[in-house]
Amino acid sequence: MSNVDTAARQRIAAAYDPQLFKSLGTRFAELVGQHLEEVQHSQHPVLNWNEPFKLMAEAQGTYSGSRINVPTPERFGELVRLALSRGHNLHDPRYVGHQVPASVPFAGLFDAIGSVTNQPMAIYEMGPWATAVEQALVRDLLQLVGWTSQVSAGIVTHGASLANLTALLVARNLTLPESWRQGVPRSGPLPALVVQADGHYCLARSAGILGLGTDQVIKAALDDRRRMDPVQLDATLADLRRQGRPVIAVAACACATPIGAFDPLEPIAEVCQRHGVWLHVDAAHGGATLFSEKHRHLVAGIEQADSFTCDAHKMLFVPALCAFLFYKNKQQSFAAFEQHAPYLFDPTAPELAEFDSGLRTVECTKRAATFGLWGVWAMCGSQLFADLVDVTFDLTQQFHGLLTDAPDFEPLHQPECNILVFRHIPPELRDAPPRVLGDFQLRLRRKVIESGVSYLVPTAFNGVPALRVTLINPLTTVGHLQDLMVTLRSEGRQLLL
Amino acid sequence: MSNVDTAARQRIAAAYDPQLFKSLGTRFAELVGQHLEEVQHSQHPVLNWNEPFKLMAEAQGTYSGSRINVPTPERFGELVRLALSRGHNLHDPRYVGHQVPASVPFAGLFDAIGSVTNQPMAIYEMGPWATAVEQALVRDLLQLVGWTSQVSAGIVTHGASLANLTALLVARNLTLPESWRQGVPRSGPLPALVVQADGHYCLARSAGILGLGTDQVIKAALDDRRRMDPVQLDATLADLRRQGRPVIAVAACACATPIGAFDPLEPIAEVCQRHGVWLHVDAAHGGATLFSEKHRHLVAGIEQADSFTCDAHKMLFVPALCAFLFYKNKQQSFAAFEQHAPYLFDPTAPELAEFDSGLRTVECTKRAATFGLWGVWAMCGSQLFADLVDVTFDLTQQFHGLLTDAPDFEPLHQPECNILVFRHIPPELRDAPPRVLGDFQLRLRRKVIESGVSYLVPTAFNGVPALRVTLINPLTTVGHLQDLMVTLRSEGRQLLL
Repeated sequence: MSNVDTAARQRIAAAYDPQLFKSLGTRFAELVGQHLEEVQHSQHPVLNWNEPFKLMAEAQGTYSGSRINVPTPERFGELVRLALSRGHNLHDPRYVGHQVPASVPFAGLFDAIGSVTNQPMAIYEMGPWATAVEQALVRDLLQLVGWTSQVSAGIVTHGASLANLTALLVARNLTLPESWRQGVPRSGPLPALVVQADGHYCLARSAGILGLGTDQVIKAALDDRRRMDPVQLDATLADLRRQGRPVIAVAACACATPIGAFDPLEPIAEVCQRHGVWLHVDAAHGGATLFSEKHRHLVAGIEQADSFTCDAHKMLFVPALCAFLFYKNKQQSFAAFEQHAPYLFDPTAPELAEFDSGLRTVECTKRAATFGLWGVWAMCGSQLFADLVDVTFDLTQQFHGLLTDAPDFEPLHQPECNILVFRHIPPELRDAPPRVLGDFQLRLRRKVIESGVSYLVPTAFNGVPALRVTLINPLTTVGHLQDLMVTLRSEGRQLLL
Repeated sequence: MSNVDTAARQRIAAAYDPQLFKSLGTRFAELVGQHLEEVQHSQHPVLNWNEPFKLMAEAQGTYSGSRINVPTPERFGELVRLALSRGHNLHDPRYVGHQVPASVPFAGLFDAIGSVTNQPMAIYEMGPWATAVEQALVRDLLQLVGWTSQVSAGIVTHGASLANLTALLVARNLTLPESWRQGVPRSGPLPALVVQADGHYCLARSAGILGLGTDQVIKAALDDRRRMDPVQLDATLADLRRQGRPVIAVAACACATPIGAFDPLEPIAEVCQRHGVWLHVDAAHGGATLFSEKHRHLVAGIEQADSFTCDAHKMLFVPALCAFLFYKNKQQSFAAFEQHAPYLFDPTAPELAEFDSGLRTVECTKRAATFGLWGVWAMCGSQLFADLVDVTFDLTQQFHGLLTDAPDFEPLHQPECNILVFRHIPPELRDAPPRVLGDFQLRLRRKVIESGVSYLVPTAFNGVPALRVTLINPLTTVGHLQDLMVTLRSEGRQLLL
């Protein structure tokens, strides 16, 4: 072995040193634990707002230039502190932003078992424990729906966009049996995809990706609470049938993103069954209500769907990404893909194919994405998942009450879950045209988030910009929401000066 | 607030307690550090082989039944020990399996910053530091290729299968401009996708997903070293042109999975340019050679590609998943998708769109996937990436020498990187028919991996099963490989008894 090799092997051994790892791990626990404590007590900005180019230069400064560094605990401490000071503090109870939770902190430690020891799967033998944990959780989640693992199946993939795409790919392949091999048909009436009009953009996107074309997306009509209307859906499907157009699927939502509206799944499923159309439910956000006795009525009928998604990294409060895709009929879950890869699938063990995740997911190598969920469930029991849903949903009702009672706030709908859209309307703008009022909401929000005292998001309601919160930090209280209203008033006043 | 609410909030506060987190984190560092030490010294099986149903029952036993648990450090310790004892020990230097590395252990701690504090992106403001780190790394990786961030671009996504799909989606949308909205064309000659004949299954799969049809995949002819042959590629493209068939892309490999063959990218790029065809390079495995002076010649010409993928979770030795997708032309990176989502994209800050990852990735919510790579680079400097490539590639040459010198082993190709395919041929099987010899390799491998003394994978070479190693644990030495040969001999002898 040459001297160069020896030096390289020494540098590698230093990076892989278990003693170094222990020392860094201990420091990690102290620094991150301390940070969580400070953030829970609102001692930092919620969002550390910075321009991208400034942050990029700062990131680059930490690694560029020096070709060889000796890894030390001191250096590690500096880098961890930097990352913590530049991030987005979702664990601050003033965070009321996107559908991304203040996750259970120790879920990240369970996740890190997989990251440190690198436990991905693709085939069962690569990640036996990762696969077993995923499939055990799948079975228990299936049971919540009233399905069994003899008949039904589930997989985990990287986000609901990918899960929805995968489900719609299966629906396409089953509706148009030649499409996988020959491509989408070149003759006959155009296939259509029926999507909740407020559905997440990934649903319409799927039609673009799958070669159907986004023009072939038919938006299902909504009722006055922005839920899919089963009667109008029936008429839409009848109309498509008259035109002879094959329908890939109806994609319903539980709930739709903008205001968190839950589609009435029971009558929708009945309509879909009558028309022989695949029903897919995007329950990325609302699937977790299955754990709550109080709120599971919102997804009643989901057991009649052909497939549905549920993001554990939303309302089960584990870190991103951990998205479940469930199929009522297990065999259909294999209709997404076909492949040949002799270095992966072992013909001497065909009974393991059901546990080879790569046969059913876009991913080949796939992270052990369910360790966080497993850890929270095993540490706290299933009651915690019910608690998280109940507390955040109930708080949203209270916030709705606060907004209703305030003369200068207007909630724009009755909340069904923990999403609420509203506007702040100071006296000066009471008679302002929609354009002015909407513009005020957007500028107000940007001012607030850059100030670091709260984090909420923009949306549009009836075409006019509005403010939107998701109460997805379970440490948020009514007091924090009263403070948010005070903040919006004072920052708004400054804007109007 | 009702009593029920109070109890729920108390349970939530217990789960979110920063003091609990510190205590669990410290225990995590001790237990995982100790495990790494033992695994590096081969004190455990490489693969803890177990039947899936047994492991699933064990996983389920840890969480089912009890509805409410109080989270404690003792319980945490039990669960971590269980997970560590049931996993796959990639950090054992006897692990020589799939293209999944024994990752730099502390990379997992950097990754956990994102998991514990939950730092996903989608839009810039959700994960400013996550976005900045990703885009800073993209810039430096672009520079390695000789590209600049003024002209070129890169994104990170969940695995090379998804990255390749995204690149081919862009190529489809640019080749067939109406396909996103109207669907793949219904008239004219069928569009084709030209793929390295040994390319990863995800490439042909992409044709199925994108609505082109896997029958429309044309396998590019290979030379005697299983590399794409530029002269035959030229003839194939000329033939397709004569047929009037639009060519979505040529997908080349650096390297192809089966034996790690690197396509000659310079002449391939020249051919593609002449035919006006998009060149995509799947450099999931070999892209990391850009860091190595000694081996970067393998990807010479990659700077002439239109797009390429590189998995940091392969030869940059960070945990899965962290896949980069690069585009030579920045504008083209926006051709993958179109979407409308008023609650995401803020019209008051249009200059941030370039940093809104969701515009260019299948994922909406996307993990902070580059913290591990950032941490390793910042802690050790770029030399470590060169070291890791050089040491593992050089070791593979040495293994090839050992196999060549042994009368009862047959290496099936000269290795170009750290992938090597071979057969063990004990004297009794020297004149055996291919079916018998192949079957012996498969049964031998299964015996070895279930014994826990090594982990290698099966493949087929010229249609006959063979053994395949990837030397992707940099702590593996020649001694370990000599031991592997001894193991194969002794286990093989038992099979033949």
